[in-house]
Amino acid sequence: MRVLVPDREEFRTLAVEGVDLAFYSPEHVPGGGADGVVLWLAPAKLRDELLALPGLKWVLTLTAGIEHVANALPPGVTLYNAHRLHDRTVAVHTLAGMLAAERGLHRFRDAQRGGRWLRTMDLGTLDGARVAIWGYGHIGKILEELLGPFGAHVTGIRSRTPEAERDAALAGADWVVLLLPSTPETRGIVNADALARLKPGAWISNQGRGNLIDTEALLAALDSGHLGGALLDVTDPEPLPEGHPLWSRENVLITPHIASTTRDLIARGAEYTQAFLEAMAAGREPEGRVEAGQKY
Amino acid sequence: MRVLVPDREEFRTLAVEGVDLAFYSPEHVPGGGADGVVLWLAPAKLRDELLALPGLKWVLTLTAGIEHVANALPPGVTLYNAHRLHDRTVAVHTLAGMLAAERGLHRFRDAQRGGRWLRTMDLGTLDGARVAIWGYGHIGKILEELLGPFGAHVTGIRSRTPEAERDAALAGADWVVLLLPSTPETRGIVNADALARLKPGAWISNQGRGNLIDTEALLAALDSGHLGGALLDVTDPEPLPEGHPLWSRENVLITPHIASTTRDLIARGAEYTQAFLEAMAAGREPEGRVEAGQKY
Repeated sequence: MRVLVPDREEFRTLAVEGVDLAFYSPEHVPGGGADGVVLWLAPAKLRDELLALPGLKWVLTLTAGIEHVANALPPGVTLYNAHRLHDRTVAVHTLAGMLAAERGLHRFRDAQRGGRWLRTMDLGTLDGARVAIWGYGHIGKILEELLGPFGAHVTGIRSRTPEAERDAALAGADWVVLLLPSTPETRGIVNADALARLKPGAWISNQGRGNLIDTEALLAALDSGHLGGALLDVTDPEPLPEGHPLWSRENVLITPHIASTTRDLIARGAEYTQAFLEAMAAGREPEGRVEAGQKY
Repeated sequence: MRVLVPDREEFRTLAVEGVDLAFYSPEHVPGGGADGVVLWLAPAKLRDELLALPGLKWVLTLTAGIEHVANALPPGVTLYNAHRLHDRTVAVHTLAGMLAAERGLHRFRDAQRGGRWLRTMDLGTLDGARVAIWGYGHIGKILEELLGPFGAHVTGIRSRTPEAERDAALAGADWVVLLLPSTPETRGIVNADALARLKPGAWISNQGRGNLIDTEALLAALDSGHLGGALLDVTDPEPLPEGHPLWSRENVLITPHIASTTRDLIARGAEYTQAFLEAMAAGREPEGRVEAGQKY
């Protein structure tokens, strides 16, 4: 079995019996076809070149999101993702942002820049907070476990959650956490209507995909004071261009699509690939197979 | 029994059989003496006036720290503090800061001000982090419980911890959390020597009292790059004056002595006082009695 993997130091040490590894980079894709390809953060041109390799049977994307691959996948090629590589980090990142917002850390950071000892009592702890997790999969369940000891009450919303139940959960939430994938059904799902139905003062956290939220509607809900604030790890457009109005909002905390990033992420990706290839070489079904039309 | 309590709306609704309540403010201390006084954040002059009331038998300070009262307490007067009112919030605040620092939220906030999409992978999660909690009392134990699910390993250091054991815990720590009280023994306990013995890159979090740390030594350890960074909810001097060098350090996160503050803190203080007075009136020993020479 011939497999193409990224030409990075961490992948150079992989070794699996029965697997012939070759290394690609944006500058060089080895000839000779491949049974499988392991994708890291490949630019569109490189990705298209890799997906067009003769003999391709499967693709493993080391991301959690799949839309950048699924939409370009040739018929008959099986897709795997690596959500387990990211789930816990995204859950921890989400909680970090929620706690930081409750404790006013963004306001104190701004005050620090001006050398100001900011006197305020307008601070919280998540104790008793109602949290609606919209997109209740692997990450959502870890987040729920992490939230428990803080005294927060979680409601998970899935694609099969009845509409009335979903709307009640959203209307009662102090925090709405978006962990949805980007699909035709979820695009713009948080529009002016959805925002208007949230509890006044509620905060929204988007750790899913930027286009889940209608950015203009979000800005309007922030300007009117209806929304308490927003934590955005993903934006639309992304990256957020210089001068975009979201940058300058005090109650918007922006992180640059790093919710799943850690300094050892590439090393962990290589380890994950090793285990994946061992399963594949042994004829076992590896984890992470993406089913067509999969919901959340 | 006559008890003086702060003249605040939240305390006006207190009612306990057998307790005659009177209300004080900086402008007015009712005459006629008192059996007990409930202190909120009283300025020194008001505090001295209250502590000099004829017939005084006990003082309840609604703070966790006691040095501002203990040093001015007349002989024979019993002191109570209200650590339970603060413990959980301080533990949550401490964890919020640690997670925020690991996830780089301060760096992203600074980048946001400049409208910059900051690309970095230098981020952590506390997974596997070694945390030394120096001052291992009520707050420390809650913090340890909260840290567990994140995969951090905690070592608690108490005043009776043998020196060699303490030094080993500090030398091995990725995070040193100070929750010590301010006493003659703890003043300046984190000096140049102590800082030099920490692991390179370690972070320090001071949620105890500002004078635990020698500020000049802290600045030197930050400047040399030996220390990874610092979370300071308390400082020396405090409040930190405009133009103080600590304000401008990227890897120093300053909050203005609000670790135990929430928007409902005064209401919770009044509730706590109600339960305290009920115990006192019923002849039960209320919680929070401070023993002379108490350690951590």
